[in-house]
Amino acid sequence: MDDAKFRREHRQALVDDRVSGASQLARQALESLAEYAGSCAGNDITDARARLLAFAEELQYARPSMAPLYNLVQRWSDQVERLRGDDLDAFRRAAAEAAEALCDASITAVVDAAGHAATLLDEHSVVITHSLSSTVLEVFKQIHARQRHPLRAIVSESRPGMEGRDQARALAGIGTAVTYITDAELGLFSGKATLALVGADTVLADGSVVNKVGTYLLAMAARDHGIPFYVCCESFKHVPFHAAGFELDEMPPGELDAPRHANITPRNVFFDITPARLVTGWVTETGIRAAAQ
Amino acid sequence: MDDAKFRREHRQALVDDRVSGASQLARQALESLAEYAGSCAGNDITDARARLLAFAEELQYARPSMAPLYNLVQRWSDQVERLRGDDLDAFRRAAAEAAEALCDASITAVVDAAGHAATLLDEHSVVITHSLSSTVLEVFKQIHARQRHPLRAIVSESRPGMEGRDQARALAGIGTAVTYITDAELGLFSGKATLALVGADTVLADGSVVNKVGTYLLAMAARDHGIPFYVCCESFKHVPFHAAGFELDEMPPGELDAPRHANITPRNVFFDITPARLVTGWVTETGIRAAAQ
Repeated sequence: MDDAKFRREHRQALVDDRVSGASQLARQALESLAEYAGSCAGNDITDARARLLAFAEELQYARPSMAPLYNLVQRWSDQVERLRGDDLDAFRRAAAEAAEALCDASITAVVDAAGHAATLLDEHSVVITHSLSSTVLEVFKQIHARQRHPLRAIVSESRPGMEGRDQARALAGIGTAVTYITDAELGLFSGKATLALVGADTVLADGSVVNKVGTYLLAMAARDHGIPFYVCCESFKHVPFHAAGFELDEMPPGELDAPRHANITPRNVFFDITPARLVTGWVTETGIRAAAQ
Repeated sequence: MDDAKFRREHRQALVDDRVSGASQLARQALESLAEYAGSCAGNDITDARARLLAFAEELQYARPSMAPLYNLVQRWSDQVERLRGDDLDAFRRAAAEAAEALCDASITAVVDAAGHAATLLDEHSVVITHSLSSTVLEVFKQIHARQRHPLRAIVSESRPGMEGRDQARALAGIGTAVTYITDAELGLFSGKATLALVGADTVLADGSVVNKVGTYLLAMAARDHGIPFYVCCESFKHVPFHAAGFELDEMPPGELDAPRHANITPRNVFFDITPARLVTGWVTETGIRAAAQ
C-alpha cells in the first residue's frame, strides 16, 4: 500500500470510530504508528523520521476533543525526534517499540487508576454511570476479581450512539446487577445510587471534565441528591488548557432521526463539559485528588 | 355495545395512550363520559347515575400520575351527584352537557395560561423545552398569531416515546426556528437558551412538578446556567397532595430495547418530579406566581 493511502485510511478510522473511548483511540493511533514505522517509505533515517512525524501530527488532530490521542502521540513524537538508530532498520524497530511501550504504559495507567477508584466502593455501593468507559468497567472487573462484594450499577443508554448498551452488557457479563435507563432518567435514578462514577475523554486545566454528552446532567443530579461524583481516568487525559475555545466534536445530525422540516436543525454534539465545581474527586494512576472544600 | 365492554375499552384507551398530555387525556375521559351518559344502560335516573359515577371512578384512576384526569372527572362526578333531571332523557342530556362544559373550561384555561406565559417572551427569547406539551405549543401559537417577533426553541427528543419529535414538528410548522437535540444534550444546550418552559402533568401541593422524565434534568441545567425555569399549566393540574407516595407511571421496559441479559433490568419510568426549589414561577390561567426569593 502506498504511504498516502495508508495514512489516509488509518486517520479516517479514528475519525469514524464512535465506539472506542479516547484512550483506546490513542492506543489505536500508536498501533498505526508502529505499523507505519515498519512499513513506511524512506531512503534513510532522516526521511523516515520526517514521514513518521508528519503522520503522527495527522493522527494527533483527528479527534480534537480527545486529549490522550494528542498527549500520547505527542509523547511518541518527542521520542522519535530524539531517536538515533545505527541504521534505518534499527531506527524503524526502535520507533515501533516506543509506540508499543506507550501503549503498555497507557494500559497500566488505566489499571492503576481503576485500582484507586475501587477503594471508593463497598458492599452497599450503587454506582450510577453514563455511557461507555473502559476505565469504569476496569473498576468493576477488579472488584469482581477479588470477589469482595456484590456489584450494583445504574447505566444510561447514551443516545444516539447507545454506548451504554455495551457498558451494561459488559458490566452484567462480570456479574454486576445492572439497572438500565434512558438518559432522561438520570435525574430520577441518581436518587437510587450512592455514588456517580464516570470516565473522561479529557480533563481540562481547572479540573472540568470533557466526556460523553449527558455527563454534565449526571453531575448536577449527583450534586442535587447529595451523592459524590468521581471522575476516573489516567493522567494522559489531563491537558494544560481551559474550556474557553475547546472544540467539542459534533457528529452527523442524521443520527438523531429528527423530523425533516426546513425550520428544524438537529444538533448532535458528542461531548459536554462538566464544571470542576461539580466534581467530588479526580482519580488517576497516582491516586485520588479530592476537590477543595 | 354492552356497558361493561364500552367502559373497559374506553378506560384501556386512556391507559395505552402514550402521546396525549394529561389535559388531553382528561378531556378524552370527559368525552367518554358524555358518550356514556347518552348510551349507558339504566332504567331510571338513580340507576343511570350510579353507572355514570362508577365509570367516572374507573377512568379517574386509569393514569395515577395525571392530575387533571382525576380533577376534571371528579368535578364532573360532583355535578352528576347533584343533577336532578325531569326524566331519564333530560338527566342523560344534562350529564353529557356537564362533561362538554368541563372540556371547554379546560381548553379555555390552557389558552389563558398560555397567554400569561407568552408575556415572559420577547424577540430575544430562546426557549428550551422538553418533550411534548400542548400548553407550550399554545404559547408559541399565540405569539405567532400576533406576529410579534420571530420564535426560537430548543426541543429535546424525549426518549423512549420521542414525543419531542411531535413538539418540534408542531413548533416548526408555525414558523419557529427549532434546534432539535437529544435528552443528553439538555445540559449543554441550556447554555444557549434564555428561558426554560415546560408543561406539567401534575403540580403537587408544594409546587413540585410531575412531568415527563428528564424535566428535572432541564430544571437543574437551567438553574446552573442562570436562566429561569417556568412551568405553565391550567390549575386543574394542581393537586393538594405531596410527593411522598406519589405514584410515577412506569411503562413497558421493552421500549428501551435494552441488551438482553439476566443481570440487566431496564426501567422505563415515564415521569420525574422537579422540586419546587428549582422552579422560577408557575403559570396558570389566573396568572404567574413567582417563587419566593
